Amino acid sequence: MNTPALGPEDAHRVVIVGAGFGGLECALGLKGAPVKITLVDRRNHHLFQPLLYQVATASLATSEIAWPIRHLMSDRPEVTTLFATVSGVDANNKRVLLEDGDTLPYDTLVLATGVRHAYFGHDEWEPFAPGLKTLEDATTLRRRILVAFERAERESDPKKRAAMLTFAIIGAGPTGVELAGTIAELARDTLPPDFRNIDTHRTRVVLIEAGPRVLAGFPDDLSAYAQRSLEEIGVEVVLGQAVTECSADGVVYGGKPLAARTLIWAAGVRASPAAEWLHAPADRAGRLQVMPDLTVPDHPDIFAVGDTVTIADSKGNPVPGIAPAAKQQGRHVAASIKARLRGETPRPFRYSHAGSLAQIGKRRAVIDFGKVKLRGTIAWWIWGIAHIYFLIGLRNRLSVAISWLWALARDQRAARLITQGSSKVGR
Amino acid sequence: MNTPALGPEDAHRVVIVGAGFGGLECALGLKGAPVKITLVDRRNHHLFQPLLYQVATASLATSEIAWPIRHLMSDRPEVTTLFATVSGVDANNKRVLLEDGDTLPYDTLVLATGVRHAYFGHDEWEPFAPGLKTLEDATTLRRRILVAFERAERESDPKKRAAMLTFAIIGAGPTGVELAGTIAELARDTLPPDFRNIDTHRTRVVLIEAGPRVLAGFPDDLSAYAQRSLEEIGVEVVLGQAVTECSADGVVYGGKPLAARTLIWAAGVRASPAAEWLHAPADRAGRLQVMPDLTVPDHPDIFAVGDTVTIADSKGNPVPGIAPAAKQQGRHVAASIKARLRGETPRPFRYSHAGSLAQIGKRRAVIDFGKVKLRGTIAWWIWGIAHIYFLIGLRNRLSVAISWLWALARDQRAARLITQGSSKVGR
Repeated sequence: MNTPALGPEDAHRVVIVGAGFGGLECALGLKGAPVKITLVDRRNHHLFQPLLYQVATASLATSEIAWPIRHLMSDRPEVTTLFATVSGVDANNKRVLLEDGDTLPYDTLVLATGVRHAYFGHDEWEPFAPGLKTLEDATTLRRRILVAFERAERESDPKKRAAMLTFAIIGAGPTGVELAGTIAELARDTLPPDFRNIDTHRTRVVLIEAGPRVLAGFPDDLSAYAQRSLEEIGVEVVLGQAVTECSADGVVYGGKPLAARTLIWAAGVRASPAAEWLHAPADRAGRLQVMPDLTVPDHPDIFAVGDTVTIADSKGNPVPGIAPAAKQQGRHVAASIKARLRGETPRPFRYSHAGSLAQIGKRRAVIDFGKVKLRGTIAWWIWGIAHIYFLIGLRNRLSVAISWLWALARDQRAARLITQGSSKVGR
Repeated sequence: MNTPALGPEDAHRVVIVGAGFGGLECALGLKGAPVKITLVDRRNHHLFQPLLYQVATASLATSEIAWPIRHLMSDRPEVTTLFATVSGVDANNKRVLLEDGDTLPYDTLVLATGVRHAYFGHDEWEPFAPGLKTLEDATTLRRRILVAFERAERESDPKKRAAMLTFAIIGAGPTGVELAGTIAELARDTLPPDFRNIDTHRTRVVLIEAGPRVLAGFPDDLSAYAQRSLEEIGVEVVLGQAVTECSADGVVYGGKPLAARTLIWAAGVRASPAAEWLHAPADRAGRLQVMPDLTVPDHPDIFAVGDTVTIADSKGNPVPGIAPAAKQQGRHVAASIKARLRGETPRPFRYSHAGSLAQIGKRRAVIDFGKVKLRGTIAWWIWGIAHIYFLIGLRNRLSVAISWLWALARDQRAARLITQGSSKVGR
């Protein structure tokens, strides 16, 4: 097949690879510019990743946090959405290579390809300790969590049953903390009346962190509060212990084995292979080292944004790998492309940190606005309202708000479904 | 592992296999009876099958029409829910055999194991023409339908593109009619603004029926109205033509091949192997021929309900394989078990037909209440309200109502997600 028509030959061709927060924001920011845009993603949907753990823990449905990319661009005739997988970049001939053999010529390329989880050289751990980046990851994790309780209900050997009711989460960043808190509450508040042979209150949720505290990106006092809150809802927090083994039996940390049937990896990520495509300099996690204007060194026509890049803020600290940072970069690149088309020189990117948020459990969250720090119930409400605000579309906002209010009032989860297989799954 | 505890030895043990409409209703009907119940299903969820086609066509989320069985029984301490697959029945020793080697002893057994699609001796057609019975079937079908449009968007060969934009639905019962109408509206109303290279109005939806009319279970005039309505929204209705071939290229009927990339099987079902487990008499579709009180011949302690059985109504016509019939049977069996425990003789089952409903598209439906026949917009509203009424739980009722009103007002679908794979899926 042929390359899709990109319209009049004279229009400046922008190809954006990846429709996550950075890529999508760039496409939105280019509205009205004299360009033809091709937005490529190997998924058909944009995903609101900050709430992905809620799909994994049966609180939200997949469709509440994902939107067809194509539909988000329906009022933009100059944007062509491609559901395709990129396999490389031919920078000399200014073409993006697709896995199916097609090529996409560009005048300006924007790489917003994101990250996958990384196992620090232990890729063999992945089948035992899956990570959480895609909708499929989330439904797989949901299945594993729910099946663990189902198997425990039918297990008569107390040792095996205890292992089935032990959940080890590796990495205590926001995702690890949010997963641990939600699984603990699932076991403590939602599931007890539904089981006959097990007491789900006896579920162990163990959060293992190699560093000295949970939520390392937050100030010390919020980290301490988060740890206290987790412990109050029954999470065992293990600090300063690196995991040295993940297997079907469980996890080994600090030389001690923990028998656990469900492991979740929230410890590390690795950038997608954009740096390899370009043979460009990258940090240890594979993130492109970009110029202050977010272009790739020696490639002024190639921008990179979001988790694909590493860049410092005005104080020399690395810009965090969070949605607002990716969106700011996407917006900045859109403005830079417009500036260049007007003959102006783009300005360097300046990151502005609005704040950091993490939910710990029902009615608890921590928020770091820099000067103002919040925690507890008020922070939880702000956390919830902020996340609903950033969802796309009134329908999903309404739907998520109802799901959360329901969970708050009734301790029920809307999406406790084991799919992708029968009762044999996970055995 | 051991058999789960069934409580005091003196309680009458009821095992119900299958938590569809019949099995669930039987468990609900046994509330208050002096019995210990084990409810076994190989899925963890009860499914509202009448709306499954709406999940397949991206209108509803999976969690809107499915509930964890365990949770539906949470206030019933005498009910044990088992997530397990049944492999047979040892009627001599009154035990249900599970695939994992376990056994469940019973005093009374209720078989409510439902149906799967059947290909009339052509099982090799299944990969090309999947059917629609489970949540996984629905998400698979959704993916195929959405991927077909994605592939067409990137295809430059007009012949191949036409095949990608052709959907053949085999069988014009309620499921076939509802799928055809919804896919036609998806192509006509929802998708057009989102695509650049294809005109989704040119999508062909071909509904192929071997019999002389659509909705054969309805009166002639409603069948004729349904056919007219389908044709008005662009569905091509083919009657009196049997399908003789399904392949990756398409479908052959009446000796003519139709190039179609997406085939959907809505033509036939076969009962699950309950009759084989018992070596009991069954009809050609594998349905158990039960006694008037719904017991299996020569097995007075084994009842069977729903799609698992074939039984005649008071006029000698077969009771239809629909949810209300299964529920009535489940309720009847619960009453019979209670009667026996009181020393009374159970009465024969009498089916009472409340009516038949089918949706044809947005704002159109047919309803046959026997004396009263309805069609058009008023029928559509009654259809919608009836279905919302029969959903379980206020939360899902609210959620489905919002999804439908949104679809009505905006022509948008909430769940246009391609999951279970990347862009390579379905290629």
